[in-house]
Amino acid sequence: MRVLIKNVFVEGKRRDILIEENRIKEIGEVRREEDMEVIDGSNKIAIPGLINSHTHIPMTLFRGVADDLPLMEWLNNYIWPMEAKLNEKIVYCGTLLGCVEMIKTGTTTFNDMYFFLEGIAKAVDESGVRGVLAYGMIDLFDEDRREKELEKAEYYINYIKDLNNSRILPALGPHAPYTCSKELLKKAKDLAIKYNVPIHIHMNETLDEIKMVKEKTGMEPFLYLNSFNFFDNIKVIAAHCVHLTDEEIKIIKDKNINVSHNPISNLKLASGIAPIPKLLKENVNITLGTDGCGSNNNLNLFEEIKVSAILHKGYNLDPTLIKAEEAFKFATINGAKALGIDAGEIKEGKLADIVLINKNNPTLRPIENIRSHLVYSFNGFVDDVIIDGKIVMRDREIITLDEQKVYEMAEKAYDKLRE
Amino acid sequence: MRVLIKNVFVEGKRRDILIEENRIKEIGEVRREEDMEVIDGSNKIAIPGLINSHTHIPMTLFRGVADDLPLMEWLNNYIWPMEAKLNEKIVYCGTLLGCVEMIKTGTTTFNDMYFFLEGIAKAVDESGVRGVLAYGMIDLFDEDRREKELEKAEYYINYIKDLNNSRILPALGPHAPYTCSKELLKKAKDLAIKYNVPIHIHMNETLDEIKMVKEKTGMEPFLYLNSFNFFDNIKVIAAHCVHLTDEEIKIIKDKNINVSHNPISNLKLASGIAPIPKLLKENVNITLGTDGCGSNNNLNLFEEIKVSAILHKGYNLDPTLIKAEEAFKFATINGAKALGIDAGEIKEGKLADIVLINKNNPTLRPIENIRSHLVYSFNGFVDDVIIDGKIVMRDREIITLDEQKVYEMAEKAYDKLRE
Repeated sequence: MRVLIKNVFVEGKRRDILIEENRIKEIGEVRREEDMEVIDGSNKIAIPGLINSHTHIPMTLFRGVADDLPLMEWLNNYIWPMEAKLNEKIVYCGTLLGCVEMIKTGTTTFNDMYFFLEGIAKAVDESGVRGVLAYGMIDLFDEDRREKELEKAEYYINYIKDLNNSRILPALGPHAPYTCSKELLKKAKDLAIKYNVPIHIHMNETLDEIKMVKEKTGMEPFLYLNSFNFFDNIKVIAAHCVHLTDEEIKIIKDKNINVSHNPISNLKLASGIAPIPKLLKENVNITLGTDGCGSNNNLNLFEEIKVSAILHKGYNLDPTLIKAEEAFKFATINGAKALGIDAGEIKEGKLADIVLINKNNPTLRPIENIRSHLVYSFNGFVDDVIIDGKIVMRDREIITLDEQKVYEMAEKAYDKLRE
Repeated sequence: MRVLIKNVFVEGKRRDILIEENRIKEIGEVRREEDMEVIDGSNKIAIPGLINSHTHIPMTLFRGVADDLPLMEWLNNYIWPMEAKLNEKIVYCGTLLGCVEMIKTGTTTFNDMYFFLEGIAKAVDESGVRGVLAYGMIDLFDEDRREKELEKAEYYINYIKDLNNSRILPALGPHAPYTCSKELLKKAKDLAIKYNVPIHIHMNETLDEIKMVKEKTGMEPFLYLNSFNFFDNIKVIAAHCVHLTDEEIKIIKDKNINVSHNPISNLKLASGIAPIPKLLKENVNITLGTDGCGSNNNLNLFEEIKVSAILHKGYNLDPTLIKAEEAFKFATINGAKALGIDAGEIKEGKLADIVLINKNNPTLRPIENIRSHLVYSFNGFVDDVIIDGKIVMRDREIITLDEQKVYEMAEKAYDKLRE
């Protein structure tokens, strides 16, 4: 079955988009044929599906369980006790809930780090979204734990490869320099090269963790990792990067490290405000992440786009910083580049990850300057979602999942966590 | 006709809400009677309608016309040329569009400052929302202009009073200390006392304007206005208050000045970040404003609630600042207090300004900690809106206005501005 989107607005022009298999075959004027499923786009705007470059999807179940607390109280009293009760089934339910939210808010790809990846992969498979999944390794400098974590990580890479689903890709997730030993980081790098997968890691999120790394190693985190050539010959997505020295920025630039900017989580957890304008000056590839729902508390990437576009203006007292077009790229083409996915723009030959937005929305009116509206005004709830050439949501109804059933399953899973 | 909302969640409990005339008559278990219009609330959450304490509603037409520019370029090349083409009809259309957006995003009251108030009042009357309307006075220190502005302001107070619509209230809007002479400010105050109406004024929005006032008067704006007892014996809503000295904060506290915090506009225009935590320590009444759509670019007060709750945490590196409950109050009861409106909470005897939110929304799941979800996760689009006891929107369909027609009128008005 081919899919034809008729008369849709793409970059301000009315076009037809023909999808064949999982790719965009043609953009222009396309004649309807019998084997085509046709979507009337005449009242809609087409954009590339958004790409969330840092999240922990199963934590969608943790939405609102604890807010407005110091980090250690939040972790010790709420997040870690709940995480101790997780299992594959609960993680599956949490991921389904996250997928519903991502689909409804136009995110077609997410880059995840978590545990119980069988549960995550199952939900991703069923929901139709695209996921890059890393098992989060933490050894806390303990040798036994390290070997077990590396084994698990390698197991999951093979597990995901064996699924043979082009929408589900493996990655390696050494958690962070303050929770992983140098040996773990080195071996993770070896695995990344062996399997040709990206590394997804938390870097420089808080001043406290940077202090810990400096006390242990005498170096700032990026300098420390660079001291054993961690960043060479691999693709790295570094989440957060809130506090950076100029020397660290130079490493990020020189080693082509992709930055996942998570402004909302960084504000809510009081981690700080990342120096994105400085990174942009060095042409660093900036992408956007929501982080998990424990610290955001949603997966609506449109909020991240808006906050990234306004925050740095206000913080630096310069209204010309991070223009609408740039912020939109953070969440689309830049994310695709970072993850090595051939999507992020609506172009012939690209993967067919397309989102349609209804123009009957006051936040999009007057109906001019659509790019600006999508960045600064739109609320994020979209009409239709196509991922990998398949229609996943049509006229706000999710086709791949039973939304009501997902809510029920998620509530039950949540009750188990709170028992 | 009485309105009965059956089985709705209010502060976590299932309740019935009975509305008689324009007030909440009873909350509890209410038997359905024949003369009641019944709304099934069993899948919905009831919250008090939100209150936008600073905006310029007709500027909804200016959404997206210019972003990411230095302030003077934005004003000189885009906003002012378009404002020069305004007339009553265009302002009416812009206000209608703003009302559609406010209704859809759960705002029931707005505090406005603009021109062509006949057009605004007409749209407010028709849409069913509650508006406090001030004519924005600017004399630029010119005596002729001053007298004309004061005459207009007084004319509009009488015009609005004569409408005899309890939803439309007059206010006085001397624009700001850097655009209004001392004489204008003094006479505006006299009028505020004469007519017993609040004063709505821009204060300390940018460093530049503060510098201008200091150069002219030798004092910071709040000290300057206080030097001629401007704040005594009147109710003042001071919009922005981004840059404040400790002495100015003391005046705000001592004179019970209401602050309208506009975090998104302040970020986008690069005005800065207001010292809200400091003001809260002094028990200042903090309310929330979206500002106009030229600088936000929407009227979705839920965004303002979230940004106010996260911004100060991240900026001050303290995750305990501005808790969810507090941010929610900014947009409800605090706004009501500032404007002297007997609303802002769902309580027997209060004005019936009530908003219902559908629980079938992934951002509200798991369905616990609703207050947190409304502040940190919800996207803002609501199901039902009751204002002054009248149903204005039901199941996402606006009853008072023809949404499609409003879009058409707004597009035409916009075309006139861009000619």
